[in-house]
Amino acid sequence: MTPRPDEFTLIADLFAPLAADAIGAYGLKDDAASFSPSAGMDLVLTVDALVEGVHFLPGDPADSIAQKLLRVSLSDLAAKGATPRGYLLTTAWTKDTPLDWMKSFAAGLARDQRSFDIALWGGDTVSTPGPLTFSLTAIGEVPQGRILRRGGARAGDALFLTGTVGDAALGLAAAQQKLAATDDDKAALIARYRLPEPRVSVGPQLLEIAHAALDVSDGLMADLKHLCDVSGTGARIDVSSLPLSPAADRCLAGAPSLIEQILAGGDDYEILFAAPAEKSSEIDSLAARTGVRITRIGSVLDAREGLSAVSASGEPLVLKQLGFRHF
Amino acid sequence: MTPRPDEFTLIADLFAPLAADAIGAYGLKDDAASFSPSAGMDLVLTVDALVEGVHFLPGDPADSIAQKLLRVSLSDLAAKGATPRGYLLTTAWTKDTPLDWMKSFAAGLARDQRSFDIALWGGDTVSTPGPLTFSLTAIGEVPQGRILRRGGARAGDALFLTGTVGDAALGLAAAQQKLAATDDDKAALIARYRLPEPRVSVGPQLLEIAHAALDVSDGLMADLKHLCDVSGTGARIDVSSLPLSPAADRCLAGAPSLIEQILAGGDDYEILFAAPAEKSSEIDSLAARTGVRITRIGSVLDAREGLSAVSASGEPLVLKQLGFRHF
Repeated sequence: MTPRPDEFTLIADLFAPLAADAIGAYGLKDDAASFSPSAGMDLVLTVDALVEGVHFLPGDPADSIAQKLLRVSLSDLAAKGATPRGYLLTTAWTKDTPLDWMKSFAAGLARDQRSFDIALWGGDTVSTPGPLTFSLTAIGEVPQGRILRRGGARAGDALFLTGTVGDAALGLAAAQQKLAATDDDKAALIARYRLPEPRVSVGPQLLEIAHAALDVSDGLMADLKHLCDVSGTGARIDVSSLPLSPAADRCLAGAPSLIEQILAGGDDYEILFAAPAEKSSEIDSLAARTGVRITRIGSVLDAREGLSAVSASGEPLVLKQLGFRHF
Repeated sequence: MTPRPDEFTLIADLFAPLAADAIGAYGLKDDAASFSPSAGMDLVLTVDALVEGVHFLPGDPADSIAQKLLRVSLSDLAAKGATPRGYLLTTAWTKDTPLDWMKSFAAGLARDQRSFDIALWGGDTVSTPGPLTFSLTAIGEVPQGRILRRGGARAGDALFLTGTVGDAALGLAAAQQKLAATDDDKAALIARYRLPEPRVSVGPQLLEIAHAALDVSDGLMADLKHLCDVSGTGARIDVSSLPLSPAADRCLAGAPSLIEQILAGGDDYEILFAAPAEKSSEIDSLAARTGVRITRIGSVLDAREGLSAVSASGEPLVLKQLGFRHF
């Protein structure tokens, strides 16, 4: 094992290259970063923390952990209609974290910075007895006063979802050896659990379309409940219309009770949004333009009608738990 | 022990009140916060993490830990000439963290928010097997292109320091039962270690005065080295001119070797800045206006002359270690 360089060398070698494209990061050699917002734009800010053993498994590859950390925040920005600009990072390393692991972590960030056109602005590097703990603050911009919120859904709106639902929950089960599936399907689902695809190309274009939006991180039903609570509405999900990946579809065919995990499991990082049903053709065209599947999955109802998930035959499903909670 | 509420109740009860004054925090009920920067201003952003057992002692009071977390970042903003606006917070709690401890943590933040006219914009609340780990991103504003940096010091500048130096290092030693002093002096030094005083009233006024600035967090000599490295200069500290608190002064009189800890110890969170010597009277008037002591402690020199700390008799001190490093 290579001996570990000190904190300042680590910052200079691993992290300063990630800040090279951001003028206001000053090569990570100052106390703070600066950023000149574009005229007429609001800042949108979000922060997420990942803890080893809680949000990722100790054996997960370092580069994908770093990418997940970044993508989770990019997903929040996208769901608010914001275009990502930069991020700040805190890393708490243990004395045993190998330098190669750190290098792979930084390489994952470098790859995603290129994909999402974002740069590191600053951070803090500290030591911990463990577990590894990371937090990331992402900053984006949205036209003034236009941020897309959770609380604008209206009874009569249609509910749409980007991508597919349930892959991450099934992927987590597969990574924990708790899912019966082919090796190929397991691999596909685990990949989706490890590496969400933030819908950055879709988000800013929803400003003209959606009444309300959020990203699915706690679970489809739990996040729909958040949206309805703040909007003061109810909602119904049509289970037969849920967009599933081929792998999730095969798993569900073999074990229909998995629908519970698909509806309640978190970590999909797809955008759930409410929009007038008349916007369907605009939404189809947005999907075609961005290459991101967008599916109508239900309807916003009056608050009195509550929240439900209904099967093709019209039967309501009874769910044990809505979604993930930390305690 | 009261049973612990779930994550969402915790956010609503403890943290949402801290966000009540920030329009763009949306009561912490959305995925992200928004902020409308003032025209002609740049954003200044900084992030810091605190880990139990590394940055604070397990027995430290919860409210002072929260205040230290906030103040450390406010100190960074002040040293850059920025006026604080808001902050984002991540908290990783263990299953055993008592609700009362969390309430005290939030009360500390509430108190400091009032003192420093800043509000909570957003955050992430997660669980950890331990240690308690917190991170805070603070956002401030500074007139466009005017951020005060580390790299502008010029040979011939005078070096100034706000407040007093060494109290935090001696306070840490006192908290660890490693300092011989009276109980009153120990209490005063421990208080300074636990609760730094960010120089927010001084920082923005240095924009017209200083060539370069940073806050002393790693240790006076280590941070002076950072400033000199980036500025491409050397510097000399006149040890006899160092501003000491009465408690530190008494400790040093009893044990002259403590000068090493005073020069190398971190956590003072005072602003060290380089300014033309002609600005002395402006600086005196700034000190009088803000009530913050500002002392000339040395001079910026040519890079060839290196970095030194010189006693009243002109003897250079030899230091074993410049400052705190994480690994």
